[in-house]
Amino acid sequence: MIAIDALDPRRIAEFWMAVFGWTVVDEDDEVISIGPGDSAGPAGSGPAGFGPTIDVARVRERKQVKNRLHLDVRADGSSQQDEVARLLALGASLADVGQPDDVSWVVLADPEGNEFCVLSRSVQDVSGLPGPATA
Amino acid sequence: MIAIDALDPRRIAEFWMAVFGWTVVDEDDEVISIGPGDSAGPAGSGPAGFGPTIDVARVRERKQVKNRLHLDVRADGSSQQDEVARLLALGASLADVGQPDDVSWVVLADPEGNEFCVLSRSVQDVSGLPGPATA
Repeated sequence: MIAIDALDPRRIAEFWMAVFGWTVVDEDDEVISIGPGDSAGPAGSGPAGFGPTIDVARVRERKQVKNRLHLDVRADGSSQQDEVARLLALGASLADVGQPDDVSWVVLADPEGNEFCVLSRSVQDVSGLPGPATA
Repeated sequence: MIAIDALDPRRIAEFWMAVFGWTVVDEDDEVISIGPGDSAGPAGSGPAGFGPTIDVARVRERKQVKNRLHLDVRADGSSQQDEVARLLALGASLADVGQPDDVSWVVLADPEGNEFCVLSRSVQDVSGLPGPATA
């Protein structure tokens, strides 16, 4: 499981739910837990007990420096370019963490500035699954 | 997938491999990718394309503030207390992030100070799987 500190847990939980197509699996005033819902089994399960739950936890302090941990995401059924466009429309922004111009990934940030990368290869590219019919 | 910045990727990759029982799935001078190996399918796959790969990436800057993202882990087949003892023996240290005394989780840090929590409930507790015979 991953925990993300947030000034506004609702805003950050909604962003990441939209990114992954996830739902709220548990919540109270301080923490909103999001995940794929019933389809993935018990919250916090998954291979080797790893993921896929994110707990978005309320904190009072604002983000100060580049995050030392970040998420890398892959497009699922679309190109990297289309995925970046989708994420920008959801409230992400382009982020400059000093990356060279020629890297294969795109660095974005969520609405509170948490950096994440959109990798060049899609889920289909790395899993051997069939891609979209248009690919 | 999750990426962790590290001054010493080898040291941090070895710590997390020991925590999860993982192996190196890919590496170059700058990044060591760790995961469960063949048993989990292609690197970076998993439910909804989420995990279970961690990329430990070389950076030059030292950790400065409490991480805004962190991992939560559960014991697999042992008590929280035994799991904390195991992790301390692997090179983790107890961490104070201002948590109250009465929380159910234990806050540790990896060898470069990345905070993580050991949750009170084991993988078996949340998955409905049989626990260890001694539980």
